[in-house]
Amino acid sequence: MEKKEIWLESLITKNPQEGYELAIKLSRMGVKSTQPDIEVLKKLRKEYANSASGLTAASHVIAVNFQTISAANKYWK
Amino acid sequence: MEKKEIWLESLITKNPQEGYELAIKLSRMGVKSTQPDIEVLKKLRKEYANSASGLTAASHVIAVNFQTISAANKYWK
Amino acid sequence: MEKKEIWLESLITKNPQEGYELAIKLSRMGVKSTQPDIEVLKKLRKEYANSASGLTAASHVIAVNFQTISAANKYWK
Amino acid sequence: MEKKEIWLESLITKNPQEGYELAIKLSRMGVKSTQPDIEVLKKLRKEYANSASGLTAASHVIAVNFQTISAANKYWK
Amino acid sequence: MEKKEIWLESLITKNPQEGYELAIKLSRMGVKSTQPDIEVLKKLRKEYANSASGLTAASHVIAVNFQTISAANKYWK
Amino acid sequence: MEKKEIWLESLITKNPQEGYELAIKLSRMGVKSTQPDIEVLKKLRKEYANSASGLTAASHVIAVNFQTISAANKYWK
Repeated sequence: MEKKEIWLESLITKNPQEGYELAIKLSRMGVKSTQPDIEVLKKLRKEYANSASGLTAASHVIAVNFQTISAANKYWK
Repeated sequence: MEKKEIWLESLITKNPQEGYELAIKLSRMGVKSTQPDIEVLKKLRKEYANSASGLTAASHVIAVNFQTISAANKYWK
Repeated sequence: MEKKEIWLESLITKNPQEGYELAIKLSRMGVKSTQPDIEVLKKLRKEYANSASGLTAASHVIAVNFQTISAANKYWK
Repeated sequence: MEKKEIWLESLITKNPQEGYELAIKLSRMGVKSTQPDIEVLKKLRKEYANSASGLTAASHVIAVNFQTISAANKYWK
Repeated sequence: MEKKEIWLESLITKNPQEGYELAIKLSRMGVKSTQPDIEVLKKLRKEYANSASGLTAASHVIAVNFQTISAANKYWK
Repeated sequence: MEKKEIWLESLITKNPQEGYELAIKLSRMGVKSTQPDIEVLKKLRKEYANSASGLTAASHVIAVNFQTISAANKYWK
């Protein structure tokens, strides 16, 4: 994760769908913070994108981050 | 995930059962955002739908999303 | 999951134990929504009901759903 | 789980430690609800009680249930 | 877990770091409640302390317990 | 974890991105508390940083810690 680059300005989004997209972004940044090498990530992506358990695990992390973002946005009400 | 298509307008549902169905939808979108190829998804679905641990993992993701949706709906009270 | 059938009318239960039973039901519906074939489910059930990690994973999903139901019932106070 | 037997009267406990013990009980009931046969459970217990990942997974389920019980008791304050 | 011994008097700690240490303690008690034999625990500890997935799983349980303790302490504000 | 060293003064951060960085730090401290040997950690890091499931699991732990930190900061609003 490049420290100087701003990639997360706010948890507030216009609507639930953009909130879900931010949850996906957060989940990917969690991966990137551990493995910053884009080439390695591309190779691994192919691997887990073709594995049922890998995809379910990815959806799980998104769900946890979406919980945070939904609370931050007071559920867009 | 096709960005232009609106698939999540609101977290509010009429009742708990529709909330549960929305939780299922969110869980599937989490998978789709990582693997958008429908043919690959169909093949993998067969795989984890016949695996005890795969089904339990799927139910786990739904449970996390249902927690978010239930809070958004103030538990339909 | 048969859409027309009402299986989740409310998250409110009379007491914590009934809340726990509802959490079990939700967890099973999560499985059923992915694999609706009862015969397959019966076969798989035998499998994970005899696996330590399968049983712990099942208990985990119930715990997440019980958290939702407990909050909905304001912890039965 | 024998339906007639009352095993969960309340989520309220006298102190955090009793709350933790209740969390352990809930976690075990989650297992028992899926596999009610005591003999099978005894055999499986030996298995996961000697597996690092099995013990960590058990501790994880207890942590989720302890979260619920702690909230129910307003953190014993 | 020896029932007579008091090991958890309160969830309140002086500061976040002590809260994190309490989260570690809770996570270990979860393990101990399932496997009380210290010799077995020592042997297994060596095993998962040298496994990447074992260490990540341990950190996950600590994170869940830290969530509970942080809420109990109103985030030390 | 060296007990005398202060590594977690507060859960409050200036903005969401610094909160996310703190979540990464907490996740790593969870690992370090179980395996304090830096050389072992370096070796294991190489291992899971090249494993799709290891990276997803790391992102999951960060997501749980980010939930705690976001609540502590009232979502930076």
